[in-house]
Amino acid sequence: MENETVSLESIINNNLNGRDLEEFNRIYYGRTDNHEVKLKESSIAAAKEADFEIAAYAFPAKKEQTRTPRIVKVGVIQHSIAAPTDRPVNEQKKAIFDKVKKIIDVAGQEGVNIICFQELWNMPFAFCTREKQPWCEFAESAEEGPTTRFLSELAAKYAMVFVSSILERDENHSDILWNTAVIISDTGSVIGKHRKNHIPRVGDFNESNYYMEGNTGHPVFATRYGKIAVNICFGRHHVLNWMMFGQNGAEIVFNPSATIAAEAGSEYMWNIEARNAAITNCYYTAAINRVGYEEFPNEFTSADGKPAHKDLGLFYGSSYFTGPDGVRCPGLSRTKDGLLIAVMDLNKNRQIKDRRCYYMTQRLDMYVSSLSKVLELDYKPQVVHENEK
Amino acid sequence: MENETVSLESIINNNLNGRDLEEFNRIYYGRTDNHEVKLKESSIAAAKEADFEIAAYAFPAKKEQTRTPRIVKVGVIQHSIAAPTDRPVNEQKKAIFDKVKKIIDVAGQEGVNIICFQELWNMPFAFCTREKQPWCEFAESAEEGPTTRFLSELAAKYAMVFVSSILERDENHSDILWNTAVIISDTGSVIGKHRKNHIPRVGDFNESNYYMEGNTGHPVFATRYGKIAVNICFGRHHVLNWMMFGQNGAEIVFNPSATIAAEAGSEYMWNIEARNAAITNCYYTAAINRVGYEEFPNEFTSADGKPAHKDLGLFYGSSYFTGPDGVRCPGLSRTKDGLLIAVMDLNKNRQIKDRRCYYMTQRLDMYVSSLSKVLELDYKPQVVHENEK
Repeated sequence: MENETVSLESIINNNLNGRDLEEFNRIYYGRTDNHEVKLKESSIAAAKEADFEIAAYAFPAKKEQTRTPRIVKVGVIQHSIAAPTDRPVNEQKKAIFDKVKKIIDVAGQEGVNIICFQELWNMPFAFCTREKQPWCEFAESAEEGPTTRFLSELAAKYAMVFVSSILERDENHSDILWNTAVIISDTGSVIGKHRKNHIPRVGDFNESNYYMEGNTGHPVFATRYGKIAVNICFGRHHVLNWMMFGQNGAEIVFNPSATIAAEAGSEYMWNIEARNAAITNCYYTAAINRVGYEEFPNEFTSADGKPAHKDLGLFYGSSYFTGPDGVRCPGLSRTKDGLLIAVMDLNKNRQIKDRRCYYMTQRLDMYVSSLSKVLELDYKPQVVHENEK
Repeated sequence: MENETVSLESIINNNLNGRDLEEFNRIYYGRTDNHEVKLKESSIAAAKEADFEIAAYAFPAKKEQTRTPRIVKVGVIQHSIAAPTDRPVNEQKKAIFDKVKKIIDVAGQEGVNIICFQELWNMPFAFCTREKQPWCEFAESAEEGPTTRFLSELAAKYAMVFVSSILERDENHSDILWNTAVIISDTGSVIGKHRKNHIPRVGDFNESNYYMEGNTGHPVFATRYGKIAVNICFGRHHVLNWMMFGQNGAEIVFNPSATIAAEAGSEYMWNIEARNAAITNCYYTAAINRVGYEEFPNEFTSADGKPAHKDLGLFYGSSYFTGPDGVRCPGLSRTKDGLLIAVMDLNKNRQIKDRRCYYMTQRLDMYVSSLSKVLELDYKPQVVHENEK
């Protein structure tokens, strides 16, 4: 990875200064002061020792007369896999647990309240292979699997909420698989789960061979620290998925993802989609992507006319937060494990709603009526031709 | 305006080079070759003479076996007002016509097929004053007003389609006003019109004192050069507005706007919203903003606790195009009149739809059902609490 660009942020900070840098930051991020939050010396040392990046930024709100500030520390963790993909399934999983635990421990020391990982954080993103074995063996029970047990213990220890995206085995429904986010409360119990609503059919993302569209609606989880929801990976391209979490009162929506930089990849859209969702829905969003290259034992093709190969290309990290006003913080790097912390005042959501009136002006009745017509098999689009009168 | 930053693009091009510049362009725009299109010497000379910026970029598509390329030249024009706001209404309008005609003539020489202007391009954006006179006198008939007549002549001359955002006087319905985009065909006749669906209630944008939410649905206009639609200004914050134009088959959606850089302004969202719309709806978008400061005769306050003043702040221009894949071109400057041309292959829309399957995977039936429940007065959001079983 030595030749990979570290981040758009690093390019900017290495080349711009003075008013140019200020103006870039104002136009790009939405502010010139990035509101960096000081970290403990011990956290910085631990991050250095375990070779991961760490950074924290504040998203302050205005003082109100009738509510006290609602400050929440939210962390996202991006990481590469920790053992070769030809090692036994449980060994691969354990190696990831061991690595990520060090990051969680630092988050615990920093007083982080909620943590979200990348999509399917406890396994390689193996769907590019279209092989069923051994990858299906990574699936586990959302309520009682080893990943949930691992996190429950840390949740109780640090009074920390976890959003854990895993491959779920549904034993009560004929052993089928789901792509599921498990929400573990600060007491260590499972609050609930949400299953990925939109499954890709593009490039190497052959997920539709493994699991179907989710059947859990758009739940918002009322945690001790705020109302949260999860828009899993491909759902970030779907504005209605984001919208329904907003309608259900989400204050923070996480987008755990696995997405790549390769040709026709998503990298130039990464700053756009989770950020647009924050703007239009007036809530905080967190976009989390995995990091690194994942090489598989058998070669596979990518339906792009190119020779067979053994990896998907770079997962480019770049995880970041956006406030309900659309202002974002600098992201983590494209290349390295990391913990990014946002110190959010959740009062900001309603302040922005009051200011911008996007919900009040959205004319939902008109769209329910229009979209229900679109569903008709003989739908006639509203098209105006010249001289048609 | 001497102290204003020219553009984010100029900051980047003045400070970055080599691989840093390439990587920035790849991550930000979505490509490293900006596909600049050569302009005629005479166009460059005319633009210099009339003091406006001119640039053109291509958005190529792949060659197909069963369709020939569908190349369309689309222009957007951004401009400042041309006479002081205390001059007679008709004189102000005429001054803008005279200035903009020079830009249209150059577009005609370049073979531009479709042109869209900024929001209410033929008048100052006077709603900040909350005064009704003389601003309401800028309103005119969409079908037969002086602005439509002015453009109809040029449309026929250059076989050019115009998207013309004006203040409409509806004489057949009790003289009421609308914020309306008029679509003038390449033959010079009016194809139809669309009225702004979402009216702001924020900052100095007191438009809700002047006109109501539009009643024309989400029409797509089948022009000689392609199917086009108009999402007027504030509608860019509303993802359903963008979506319905896509459902109706729009290939290019214009977003004529009037938006400012001032505190809590929209500048850091400008690269996000029209671009997200292009991505999620797989169509081309064009975001057009007015330029410059507009000083009004009487002072007004901005509901921000600050002293009364006579202008809104800088309209920051920065008009740009995005392809259906989300790749964008460099924008026009923040400070100067300009003509930006995109040479689009409209075949790209279906290519991206086939590749990404966003429409196929959007689960519209689920959302029609969910959103219709949201409309109920006693709607209970889907919220999951710990231990609620």
